[in-house]
Amino acid sequence: MKLMRAELLTVGSELLSGATINTNAAYLSRRLAEVGIACRRHTTVGDERASLLEALQEALGRVDVLLITGGLGPTFDDITMGAIAEATRRPLIDHPAVAAAVRRFYARHHRALQRAALRQAALPRGGVPLPNPIGTAPGLWLPLDPPLVIALPGVPAEMRAIMERSVLPRLRRWRPALGGLAGCTLRTVGVVELQIQAILQRLRIPSAVQVGLYPHLRMVDIRLTARASTHQEAHRLLAPLERQLRRRLRETVYGVDADALEAVVGRLLLARHKTLAVAESCTGGLVADQLTDIPGSSRYLRGAVVAYHNDLKRGALGVPAAQLLRHGAVSAPVAMSMAEGVRRIACAAVGLSITGVAGPSGGTAEKPVGLVYIGLADRRGGRSVRAQLFGDRRSIKLQAAQTALDSLRRYLLDGLPER
Amino acid sequence: MKLMRAELLTVGSELLSGATINTNAAYLSRRLAEVGIACRRHTTVGDERASLLEALQEALGRVDVLLITGGLGPTFDDITMGAIAEATRRPLIDHPAVAAAVRRFYARHHRALQRAALRQAALPRGGVPLPNPIGTAPGLWLPLDPPLVIALPGVPAEMRAIMERSVLPRLRRWRPALGGLAGCTLRTVGVVELQIQAILQRLRIPSAVQVGLYPHLRMVDIRLTARASTHQEAHRLLAPLERQLRRRLRETVYGVDADALEAVVGRLLLARHKTLAVAESCTGGLVADQLTDIPGSSRYLRGAVVAYHNDLKRGALGVPAAQLLRHGAVSAPVAMSMAEGVRRIACAAVGLSITGVAGPSGGTAEKPVGLVYIGLADRRGGRSVRAQLFGDRRSIKLQAAQTALDSLRRYLLDGLPER
Repeated sequence: MKLMRAELLTVGSELLSGATINTNAAYLSRRLAEVGIACRRHTTVGDERASLLEALQEALGRVDVLLITGGLGPTFDDITMGAIAEATRRPLIDHPAVAAAVRRFYARHHRALQRAALRQAALPRGGVPLPNPIGTAPGLWLPLDPPLVIALPGVPAEMRAIMERSVLPRLRRWRPALGGLAGCTLRTVGVVELQIQAILQRLRIPSAVQVGLYPHLRMVDIRLTARASTHQEAHRLLAPLERQLRRRLRETVYGVDADALEAVVGRLLLARHKTLAVAESCTGGLVADQLTDIPGSSRYLRGAVVAYHNDLKRGALGVPAAQLLRHGAVSAPVAMSMAEGVRRIACAAVGLSITGVAGPSGGTAEKPVGLVYIGLADRRGGRSVRAQLFGDRRSIKLQAAQTALDSLRRYLLDGLPER
Repeated sequence: MKLMRAELLTVGSELLSGATINTNAAYLSRRLAEVGIACRRHTTVGDERASLLEALQEALGRVDVLLITGGLGPTFDDITMGAIAEATRRPLIDHPAVAAAVRRFYARHHRALQRAALRQAALPRGGVPLPNPIGTAPGLWLPLDPPLVIALPGVPAEMRAIMERSVLPRLRRWRPALGGLAGCTLRTVGVVELQIQAILQRLRIPSAVQVGLYPHLRMVDIRLTARASTHQEAHRLLAPLERQLRRRLRETVYGVDADALEAVVGRLLLARHKTLAVAESCTGGLVADQLTDIPGSSRYLRGAVVAYHNDLKRGALGVPAAQLLRHGAVSAPVAMSMAEGVRRIACAAVGLSITGVAGPSGGTAEKPVGLVYIGLADRRGGRSVRAQLFGDRRSIKLQAAQTALDSLRRYLLDGLPER
């Protein structure tokens, strides 16, 4: 089985200055992986001839597929097509059909045609122009022997349009020599990286399968990738491993691939026909913010109360003053009263609450920074969970939100224990 | 004056597979630029020894500063420290102080220490460990001659914490060879990039001053950097330009350098001895989340109500049912009632509200996706602001939050107009 060496080369000074986050690289890597091409390297250089030529010459000698984005437009700093021509020692050839398309684009947008715009009709000899349905700069398909060179504009919408309509269909036809690739990500919460590693060490992992662990605070993503001569065969390598991992990790696996915890919780609420209300103290609205990032969350989320001041815990949520005095705002009884209170005022089936010490100040020996109580209530009663978190203020808020959403998820899977 | 060649090398198979977007690269490039170091190239490779060594060896021969992120944790796929040792031909040396810190971290988290975790105490000879205030993997400061090699964990919170606390202060001291450098960032909200560009074109900008514009939704940061033989001289180049820009941009400049809009609003509330309560609909808790990211925000923020369902707008905030029926939830009168309602129930001096259509569905011809009303109320009365925003759901939430905090800031500067 031949392994493809593919690389991405992104061109744009706005990426090197940090003004723009490179989102194209992740998108392109994902789409290439879906047709069995794995990226071995991403490189970004500025809109500057010498750096671009250097990076192009290095990569051309190293890869089977080189995908370049950026620097294809009409302005003086768009130098990619010229640099590809120079690096591959091919003259630029004018494509009258592309020039006509550029002219039509300007006419349709009622703009005067700038002479420079016609530069976009010139492609290195042997190159096929890939139509751009959104802008004027065509993509380039240049099958050298080897590598295959593909160039796309850097504007994400144009890059994606040409990738979907022209590049992926061409790659699927071009790819038979590549062999197959299969991948899946198991997303876990509440189990640490080293525990997962210990589980992995006890499994027999085929050499054609790669495992990567990607921790995000209290979550760890487990990425499995298999290579074989066909996609089906790669999938056959992966499937038993995924099953074994799921059996051992049990309910700590909350989703696969792109599943977000807040989306999983939302689906569970919908499936169980339950509505939710949230009472937040130390997370300050973060849990509600995450829940409402999911389109359609208004179908199950009634709302939230951020009871930052104790007056609001008493007034809006009905937490008894005596309870606040006796146990303090960061306590199991207050967490339970907050969950029950918000459930009642919002007429929701389930109430979820978070109270804790986000820091950096406000901690005591008895109640240190990072101490958090999560409360859950339904019409049958409630329960609370205690966690001690570490990190700075934002990190504690994020971990508290993960813990709260995970508690809610486990409750929706299992219900409340009988009291 | 010597120009630095710096590169970023990011290590992580999750970046090559497209599972994760590389946000570290943009952050690090920006922060390096602030101390006068411009990145010439970003490279990403996977957690795989051969690729990492190849990329390291190429970069080491090419740069003055090499900043590496990722692959510093305790697990088998964390290979960066070993690869740096190999590429620079230096043995790994154990640092007992780092090992002790790792042990303390595990003890504090009540977790059994895995032997593998102590691998993190081994650094290439000559390397200085940089303390990690959040996790266990220390950063590395390795001043070769040349280049300077810096390695940081890939988890963004840990990477940022070590960058801010250790790397930037060290770079500022290490940097004298670079010549003098002065920089400042003017942070604006509510003025677009092209307007700022037009203002800049009318100013005389000395050739030793670099200007960069960094738009984030409805905000644009204007980064000014001057180089000269001394810091004082560089500062003298910068100061008149900063004054002219401030005069022209007036109240759209909300802060400088690291000022966050929510921190600026917090300082204004404290200075004016005013308390705040927030009623959110389409932003779903995001405004409260941002306000509570500021340590000490409990001194002025009473709390927030996320009235996602109309029942909560009526019940918790007292928005008249007739108003909801007649004008709809996304309207100026409802925004005003929400602001007044939350002000009253939270006993706050000022009420701020946000109601709008976050999308992707729910828009109509009359009230399209992205239509947002901001309400402001104090004991003398209220006002509302209308905005039409564009983008996906998250982007509309973020822009609505920026608009709301900016409206509050302008109100705190000027008060409400007489009615």
